[in-house]
Amino acid sequence: MKKRFQTVHIIAGILFFVALSAGQALAQEKARVLHQRTLPLPYGASDALKELIARTPQTDVGVHAQRTTFKTKEQWLQFIQRADGFGAAQVDLMIGRYEVEVTEEQISGVTVRTVQPQSIDPKNKNRLFIHIHGGAYVLGAGKVGLGEAIIIAHRARIPVLSIDYRMPPGHPFPAALHDVVTVYKHLLKKHPAGSMALGGTSAGGGLALASIHKFIKLGLPVPAAVFAGSPWSDLTKVSDSYFINEGVDSVLVTNDGLLEGAAKLYANGHDMKDPLLSPVYGDAAGFPPTYFVTGTRDLFLSNTVRMHRKLRAAGIAADLNVYEGMSHADYLFAMDAPESKQVFEELRVFLLQHLQ
Amino acid sequence: MKKRFQTVHIIAGILFFVALSAGQALAQEKARVLHQRTLPLPYGASDALKELIARTPQTDVGVHAQRTTFKTKEQWLQFIQRADGFGAAQVDLMIGRYEVEVTEEQISGVTVRTVQPQSIDPKNKNRLFIHIHGGAYVLGAGKVGLGEAIIIAHRARIPVLSIDYRMPPGHPFPAALHDVVTVYKHLLKKHPAGSMALGGTSAGGGLALASIHKFIKLGLPVPAAVFAGSPWSDLTKVSDSYFINEGVDSVLVTNDGLLEGAAKLYANGHDMKDPLLSPVYGDAAGFPPTYFVTGTRDLFLSNTVRMHRKLRAAGIAADLNVYEGMSHADYLFAMDAPESKQVFEELRVFLLQHLQ
Repeated sequence: MKKRFQTVHIIAGILFFVALSAGQALAQEKARVLHQRTLPLPYGASDALKELIARTPQTDVGVHAQRTTFKTKEQWLQFIQRADGFGAAQVDLMIGRYEVEVTEEQISGVTVRTVQPQSIDPKNKNRLFIHIHGGAYVLGAGKVGLGEAIIIAHRARIPVLSIDYRMPPGHPFPAALHDVVTVYKHLLKKHPAGSMALGGTSAGGGLALASIHKFIKLGLPVPAAVFAGSPWSDLTKVSDSYFINEGVDSVLVTNDGLLEGAAKLYANGHDMKDPLLSPVYGDAAGFPPTYFVTGTRDLFLSNTVRMHRKLRAAGIAADLNVYEGMSHADYLFAMDAPESKQVFEELRVFLLQHLQ
Repeated sequence: MKKRFQTVHIIAGILFFVALSAGQALAQEKARVLHQRTLPLPYGASDALKELIARTPQTDVGVHAQRTTFKTKEQWLQFIQRADGFGAAQVDLMIGRYEVEVTEEQISGVTVRTVQPQSIDPKNKNRLFIHIHGGAYVLGAGKVGLGEAIIIAHRARIPVLSIDYRMPPGHPFPAALHDVVTVYKHLLKKHPAGSMALGGTSAGGGLALASIHKFIKLGLPVPAAVFAGSPWSDLTKVSDSYFINEGVDSVLVTNDGLLEGAAKLYANGHDMKDPLLSPVYGDAAGFPPTYFVTGTRDLFLSNTVRMHRKLRAAGIAADLNVYEGMSHADYLFAMDAPESKQVFEELRVFLLQHLQ
């Protein structure tokens, strides 16, 4: 009997191995090989966006990956310092240009900055947009992450509170999520959930969506609306557009190097398919109405549309907008382009529709 | 004085030529060269869609273009006969499977077919979905174009009237448009515009959108809702996704060959940027609420999102849905896939929302 059992197991093992090999062969065989091609400037985009694309030199995918592969904490910190140094100057220019008032405070040890625009829509007087900055969970600390908060305050004519959440290498997951929860719980004491929106772009969009999962888990009332700009809804490299738009996206270029490294650094050994890290894997029941933005050249096009479909399949009011020729978050880089104006004009309308 | 005038003109001419050359050089230089890449099966798609992709052999772009380049009327007719022969058998199977009742009639010389589903939503009893079949303006004549009409009738639980509009090579533009207008005017005598929807996929979506332009021009009341599935909103090869998704889309493969040829055959010398041929170029003011569907692998992804943005910029309620891993109109080929069910379930809800 024992021998027979063993034999069955060996046969099962062989079959399993054969099936596995066949499965791998099938997957390999079924991968499509895409030929080299030429991509002209996007005819259907605005002149401003075309100009941005035209003056952005194409980066070789391999070179980009190599340049942005950091192996030590020191290399990460050097990169962060260099990249954020550039961003800080931009934010100071924007504060002047849009004449917003920025004030800083601490909420239970978390730094937040309130951005008051010159003109607030009377309906938004007692409302709040909670902003979560992007930057692959490593960039945008301090004032550097305020660019998007400023443009939202100015264009959607609403007070914005931006959370300066902790990040790796010093503070990996779940520090950032904890900081968002801390601030949100504090805000709930003064603001009804229905008077608040939550959102951001890239890692900011991903963290906003992950925070909604967390709020629901904690039994907190969710905000009335979410803005998910090209959200990093999946930290693993499985989305169609990671492959299709590699080298097409002039902002992110590829997942290899920076993004892959930052995801690992942030997840810090946690399962990347945890909805609190990759919100696309969670249950979308109970999510607030969500406004999505992406572009045809966006490496995160699929991260965006997968999350949009997830919400829609759960019966949530989710609104998707895909801009012709836009790479990841281009609306934050070509702020005077008609595309950027439309993104935030429609955010303004979306907030007026859903905030109480 | 005359000499000076000539000199100025010659200099201006040289400058113009130099500027032109520089512009061309810039455009050439700014075109991105995309490296060869491998595209795995789309992890985020349903198993059914992945299976469809896995069992569809990859077609070489050049081979596809060569095989589908038809130079004479006879070659076109041969191709149409061969392709439609396959489609006819599918439609007969569908009529049986979904137990719809199909009746044929003539409206001022235009053949139309009414598809009555087994079960009609009580709210849709006196409503009508006017269906315009796809097929690159050459395929789908007769019963062949009914596949989508059947699935809409069945899943949206609404009576469907499908227009068997005239097509090239015998009847190029504007014959098809005239047929739609003829039928619509006739239907308006019995049905309030607000009780009707109009739509279809691919050329059907394009022709539906072009028809709205025409209705507005003619001062006719527009239908209450439009369904634009991966619409051929632009007959010219300018959309970003023509380049990005060439060889990625397993249905259309490329614009070269069939699509390029069919566009020329249909336009028959008319300016392809005429909104009645390429509706994306028209003024979207006055359009009805429109429901858009496309996929990340769709050659017409940009044709879809450009039209969506056009409507949104004009303040029209337009709803965009992009499915992970879907090629052009895959929801009509993988009808049992969850993606296909969602497409038509949300169409059902959209129609209930907007039809009176």
